[in-house]
Amino acid sequence: MFEQHPYGKLISEYIQNAEYPKQPADLYDPIKYILSLSGKRIRPILVLMGAKLFGIDNLQEAIPASIAIEYFHNFSLIHDDIMDRAPLRRGKETVHQKWNDNVAILSGDALLVKAYKELGKSPSDRIPSLLDVFNKIALEVCEGQQLDMDFEKISNVSEDDYLNMIRLKTSVLLGGALQMGAILAHADKEQQQLIYDFGVNLGIAFQLQDDYLDVYGDPETFGKQVGGDILCNKKTILRIKTEQLVDSEAREELAELINFDTIADAEKVSRMKNLYAKFEVDRYAEEIKSRYMELAYNKLDAIAVSEAQKAELRKLADTLMHRTR
Amino acid sequence: MFEQHPYGKLISEYIQNAEYPKQPADLYDPIKYILSLSGKRIRPILVLMGAKLFGIDNLQEAIPASIAIEYFHNFSLIHDDIMDRAPLRRGKETVHQKWNDNVAILSGDALLVKAYKELGKSPSDRIPSLLDVFNKIALEVCEGQQLDMDFEKISNVSEDDYLNMIRLKTSVLLGGALQMGAILAHADKEQQQLIYDFGVNLGIAFQLQDDYLDVYGDPETFGKQVGGDILCNKKTILRIKTEQLVDSEAREELAELINFDTIADAEKVSRMKNLYAKFEVDRYAEEIKSRYMELAYNKLDAIAVSEAQKAELRKLADTLMHRTR
Repeated sequence: MFEQHPYGKLISEYIQNAEYPKQPADLYDPIKYILSLSGKRIRPILVLMGAKLFGIDNLQEAIPASIAIEYFHNFSLIHDDIMDRAPLRRGKETVHQKWNDNVAILSGDALLVKAYKELGKSPSDRIPSLLDVFNKIALEVCEGQQLDMDFEKISNVSEDDYLNMIRLKTSVLLGGALQMGAILAHADKEQQQLIYDFGVNLGIAFQLQDDYLDVYGDPETFGKQVGGDILCNKKTILRIKTEQLVDSEAREELAELINFDTIADAEKVSRMKNLYAKFEVDRYAEEIKSRYMELAYNKLDAIAVSEAQKAELRKLADTLMHRTR
Repeated sequence: MFEQHPYGKLISEYIQNAEYPKQPADLYDPIKYILSLSGKRIRPILVLMGAKLFGIDNLQEAIPASIAIEYFHNFSLIHDDIMDRAPLRRGKETVHQKWNDNVAILSGDALLVKAYKELGKSPSDRIPSLLDVFNKIALEVCEGQQLDMDFEKISNVSEDDYLNMIRLKTSVLLGGALQMGAILAHADKEQQQLIYDFGVNLGIAFQLQDDYLDVYGDPETFGKQVGGDILCNKKTILRIKTEQLVDSEAREELAELINFDTIADAEKVSRMKNLYAKFEVDRYAEEIKSRYMELAYNKLDAIAVSEAQKAELRKLADTLMHRTR
């Protein structure tokens, strides 16, 4: 859907037409490369939708901030992929894999600076507020990534800790993108907070749904290997909730599944799903997802613009949440 | 000298009193650590001096931008040290050595964002201009670091390429720091350009002097191992100029010194110094350094403020250039 959205096309066009110095090639080629892998451009679209929601006169004024958000997102992908030793991103080689770690570190840094450079092309009177929001969410995304790495090493991650981590790592960027759009359209602080909260809650619901679909999604449409999170022992909401609920017998089963690497993939997934079913954590995940979704819609309802103006954002939220892949 | 400068104390105090979230510790502890290694604080002092030069009313208004420059400098040290595999910085373990690469990447990123956060505390009406300058120099520093790494791998680095690299990697930050001070004091574009050019030329002269002192400095006062650049085959102005001037006999001698790792350290340094003497590149390095120094002073002369107001900057430049260590 998003690739075809007129805003998505606007953004991709801007990115494709951006000019770069020829030298140093190892600094700029990786930036052009990661941006060409494109992705769904959801975050920059949210900036434009936030601006539109609050009736911005000239949508062009919101383009630099939307590009800043997209650049920031891609900077974080380059650096996260180094830290996670990920070989692939969107089906293509990651930057550190295609070049090397040093190139990935430095071109990531340059892309982060370029994000701020785009932000600086916004209307001057809005730059201080935009910079405040951007800095806040950028630092929170760093905190989220550090917590995510920390959680890999500790055994008892609480549900609250997990929700806080996904809020920081992925959701504040969605909320911040919408808020920046609102700032560009001169929305007041209260309205800014409502649209920010809508985005953050939507983002948390989306991540929870991702955890759910990784286990229960349709293999035909999910796009990733179903059961992938179980196989790599990822601490998802399902796993964390199971750990919280298990009796002593199930605790042993869980420990065996996590620690014995001789169990065949299919068996591991199937036995873990039995545990999930026994403690009904699949239903719990759906429930908590719905709760965040409701929170998000409540915030959207409270925003002081007409229903007609909200239609597009509502459609986007519906599409995101009813996706099966 | 600089540690004792009242501006230096002001800056160190601000940095020491800055508060950090307790968590995630692996994100914020490395930041506190690198900032506590302190260094000379020359760059943030330059912001304050630039502001003072153009008669800023309230020096406090220039503190956030000066902290932004210091944070940026320390971010670049953390990431450069990863890329250079440097074990030590200011005599202490580097961040990637004390923690690990991932911690160094992410805490560096967070420190870069924190630099922008400080910048955002400047008077609102100056933020757009400050952001422009900061973004420009930040990207140039990335370019300089990439060129520096590129130069390690190629055999024929020209003098112009080298001068351009040191300009980007180290000098634009000095010029930019001064310019940001000028912006804070409402100096016009022409005056901004003059003080920027003063800083850039001073920075180039300083780096050329560093190349010279690495070979000819007094071992008692230089602080680093004299001859260190020769031993690690660093492409300094001396080495590059020698390569440009050598006859066929000397070319063989040079190649042997660079490529044979069985030559004892003292012999390598002494034979390389003979080559430098033969082609008088030591004198050339001093000459070209003086040329940049003169350029710098010319720019300072042209600035439209009283000599009395320039005295402090002139003293700083003199101190930097007559240092023996």
